Order: sequence, then C-alpha cells, then structure tokens
Amino acid sequence: MDDTTTHKRATHRRAQADCCWEDVERRPYKEDDRTLFRSVSRQVLFSDPDMAGEWRYFEVAPEGFTSLERHQHMHAVMIFRGRGHCLVGHEVKAVRAHDLITVPPWTWHQFRATVGEPLGFLCLVDAQRDRPQLPSEDDLADLAADPKVAAFLRGQPYS
Amino acid sequence: MDDTTTHKRATHRRAQADCCWEDVERRPYKEDDRTLFRSVSRQVLFSDPDMAGEWRYFEVAPEGFTSLERHQHMHAVMIFRGRGHCLVGHEVKAVRAHDLITVPPWTWHQFRATVGEPLGFLCLVDAQRDRPQLPSEDDLADLAADPKVAAFLRGQPYS
Repeated sequence: MDDTTTHKRATHRRAQADCCWEDVERRPYKEDDRTLFRSVSRQVLFSDPDMAGEWRYFEVAPEGFTSLERHQHMHAVMIFRGRGHCLVGHEVKAVRAHDLITVPPWTWHQFRATVGEPLGFLCLVDAQRDRPQLPSEDDLADLAADPKVAAFLRGQPYS
Repeated sequence: MDDTTTHKRATHRRAQADCCWEDVERRPYKEDDRTLFRSVSRQVLFSDPDMAGEWRYFEVAPEGFTSLERHQHMHAVMIFRGRGHCLVGHEVKAVRAHDLITVPPWTWHQFRATVGEPLGFLCLVDAQRDRPQLPSEDDLADLAADPKVAAFLRGQPYS
C-alpha cells in the first residue's frame, strides 16, 4: 500500500470541479514507456484499514487506455463520466455514464476512451489483492484472433 | 444474504432512466411502521462471492430519511444525485452530488432528503458485516442535546 492509498478519515470531502475531491490526491495523467497504458489518472476515494474494499476513480483522456491485464481479484466498475469502450474477456462493449461493468477473476480487461471525450469510472476492489498479470505474445495473439477484439486493441472498436 | 444481494455475473448492465440499472432489482420506497426510516429505496449493484465488498445504491425521496443507526462496519458513501443533509456522529453536513462521506465504526449516522429533491447515494460496505444497532432513548437524548443535531433529527437542519 503506497502513500496515495491512505488518507485521513475525514467525515465529508466535497466534490470539486472536473471530477476531483477535497483531500484526494490526483495522480496526473501519465504515460507508460512500453505503452502498456496511456493517459490514465487515478484517485483513491476510500481506503481504510477497517474496510475490506477500496474505492478508486480512474479517468482516461481521449484516445487513452488502461492496462490490458488480468488477475485473481475482481473489479466492480461504474462508468462515471463520458463514453468509451471496454474489453472484458472476449467481449467488446460500448459503455457510457452510469453503466455497470463486472470483471470476473482471471479475465482480460481494458478500458478505452474511444470517442474523443474523457472516460471516467469508479472501481471497487478488495484491499487485499494479487498483482495484475500482463498478456504474453501468445495471449495477445489469442485475443486478436477475434476481429472485434483486434479492432478494439487498435483503438478502433467501431471499425 | 437475501435474494436481492445476489445477481448474475453479467459483464455489462446498462444504466436506465431515473437511477435504475438493467438486471438490478429496485426495492421500492417503503415505510417503516416505527418510522425508523422513511421513503428509502435500495438497489444492490455489486455483490459477489469473490468480492469482499458490496456496492449498493440508496435513494431517499423528498422528506425521507434512512435509519439512524450505528454498527462495527464502516460505510463509504458517495452522494450520487440531489442534495440533502447527513448526520455522522455529532456532525451535521449539507451534502450534494459527488461528495464523499465516511462513516467510521460505531458512529451514529443518518441521511435525510431535506431540500425537496431525492437524495441518492452509493454505499460501499464489507460483505461480511454486523447488524446495525438502533439508538436507545438515552442515545437519542444524548444526540439531541446538541441543538444542531436536534434540528437535523426534526428534519429541519437549516432551522
């Protein structure tokens, strides 16, 4: 658990402009050298030793995407802002604000801001969780064997 | 765990009008004979044997209120819709959409739709949790000793 996943137990943290919150550190959009993800910011809304879950807010800038990964732990996601697409297993879904997405254990998943607007989402996870696994070349080939998934991974889910 | 706290593990459940979701049962507004709560609906958005947390959506109709209660488990709350007031311990807070509220263990709390509009909020809890405790007459007297809390409990936090 790093420094961004703990915070004071303030009773009330007001919402601020542009999906930020009082006393919540916003990790800025950042790039990954290996382009495993692009233009993703992260805020930890709730993380407490007395709670089994953690509640985070992620935002993907236009054309950005989260890591393609899988792990034992689940993700419970609510799209909070904007529209885009996500991959869950071999399913590509067009998503928009307030939709619910379930990522079961050991299921490849990625979120992409594909329609020229930021895609923000709330994500609930277990506080105790395993590290994500990244796809091997074989995994990527297996995923891309489906033309719809291949188009998604190229950032062109509509093509 | 009752029938409303389990659901199929659907990948994508679309948001519908008026804060409802596909495949999520909405328990209608209901009244409590003892007026422990008034006009509160409940939807379980995520509950899964593979997740330590549960994610629910509650909505309080105008002039309604949730139970005044406390318990060992924590609540992590995000106001989702509307405005209103909440009590956390001896603090009365005016809250509005997207504000974050932390209810620590063993802390009296209540949410009230005080401004003539529905108050909807997301609430994260541990799946394994204790039953709420209701206030005794002494507890209520202790709370109402603070004029601000007394006004809140009368449904008039602005008075």
